[in-house]
Amino acid sequence: MIRFYCPEIEDNPLMPEVESGHCVRVLRHQPGDLLEVVDGKGGLFTVRLVDAHPKRAMVEIVERHSLPPYWKGRLLLAVAPTKNMDRMEWLVEKATEVGMDGFIPLHCRFSERKEIKRERLEKTAVSAMKQSLKALLPVVEEMTPFARFIDKYKELPGKFIAHCVDDGQRHLLAEEYRPGEDSVILIGPEGDFSQEEIRMALDAGFRPVSLGDARLRTETAALTALQTFHIAAQLKATAG
Amino acid sequence: MIRFYCPEIEDNPLMPEVESGHCVRVLRHQPGDLLEVVDGKGGLFTVRLVDAHPKRAMVEIVERHSLPPYWKGRLLLAVAPTKNMDRMEWLVEKATEVGMDGFIPLHCRFSERKEIKRERLEKTAVSAMKQSLKALLPVVEEMTPFARFIDKYKELPGKFIAHCVDDGQRHLLAEEYRPGEDSVILIGPEGDFSQEEIRMALDAGFRPVSLGDARLRTETAALTALQTFHIAAQLKATAG
Repeated sequence: MIRFYCPEIEDNPLMPEVESGHCVRVLRHQPGDLLEVVDGKGGLFTVRLVDAHPKRAMVEIVERHSLPPYWKGRLLLAVAPTKNMDRMEWLVEKATEVGMDGFIPLHCRFSERKEIKRERLEKTAVSAMKQSLKALLPVVEEMTPFARFIDKYKELPGKFIAHCVDDGQRHLLAEEYRPGEDSVILIGPEGDFSQEEIRMALDAGFRPVSLGDARLRTETAALTALQTFHIAAQLKATAG
Repeated sequence: MIRFYCPEIEDNPLMPEVESGHCVRVLRHQPGDLLEVVDGKGGLFTVRLVDAHPKRAMVEIVERHSLPPYWKGRLLLAVAPTKNMDRMEWLVEKATEVGMDGFIPLHCRFSERKEIKRERLEKTAVSAMKQSLKALLPVVEEMTPFARFIDKYKELPGKFIAHCVDDGQRHLLAEEYRPGEDSVILIGPEGDFSQEEIRMALDAGFRPVSLGDARLRTETAALTALQTFHIAAQLKATAG
């Protein structure tokens, strides 16, 4: 089941160029065909193809479906990108499948990578959204300096920093996370966060957490954190 | 910190050829250097390099360390491999990092891939074990026909099948898994298990489970199941 991604479907009957090409040239849809379209904001639509133009295909909405998200609260990952970009694309793919609301690449003191190709990560997210039959596209932000990130997200109720300093202050994320709360977790670079960054986060109310005893690569840690949110929510929902 | 993998270190003072080359030619270790060696069975050793031969480096054990696993009970994944072999290598890498005891490639009725290169997956597991500072190498089995698998593992206490038929009989794996129990979960191919396979598994005492509401690719489902074991164990340990 192919779904097309048309972020402005409610305001604009023309499919974006890439989607038009896929629909008309690759899949050879004809006027009158019924298609499924998602807007990336949770909306799923049945539309009818009106004009099979290979660059500006026109559709009309036949039906709006409501597709409630299967998790509550926004779940955000803020990650210092790895040197190897493939590992970040992999992370965005898997995190989109598992369920994520936003991805913030962090520029940290010890970051190995200071720039990212945001568009490439967004494209990965679009594919994963379609493939996993979701209607919600995670927001992929621009590379964000650590201090600006802290300032921007300091009001979020669920704020966690998974630093690697075993100072006896960290609790397990699985225990600390309160399902339903808008939450963000900070995952550092291979060289970890700097002492100053940890201090800045703790001062802003971020709770220091551990993901368990395994030593994980950056991208594995980020996915593990997201899985922890979902699995803790499953368990607390059935316990409560 | 580089660890070398010498599965027979307790019986044989010669490092395997690949490890010898890495130690002597690449890292240029000299006789007298102290090295860390793991045996893949949970043993971690400090050894002294005695003969820096690039193919048959000789070492002597200085100290044995005990490295208790951070999870209890064996955790096994039995997965119908995807057509794309990269996705299976990725899974084995991530599962080794997160913590797994064994990986069984399943030959199912609707399998897209009937053969695997076991050695390649094992090599991936060795790298991931070293990289994540573990001393335990997951056992990578040969491709196993579904019926033979069921017969071989029918005595395991924790047996789960994550089929995709929404028949109202499935509970969440997070609830069903009992931490500490030797456990295996069956993850099917993209076309799911056949009705006959599901019946065979249920008859042998496998419990039907769901991993949640997300639609996941095979490799994502397998990693999610493994994460569920670990996170459920973390939560139950602190609750109990």
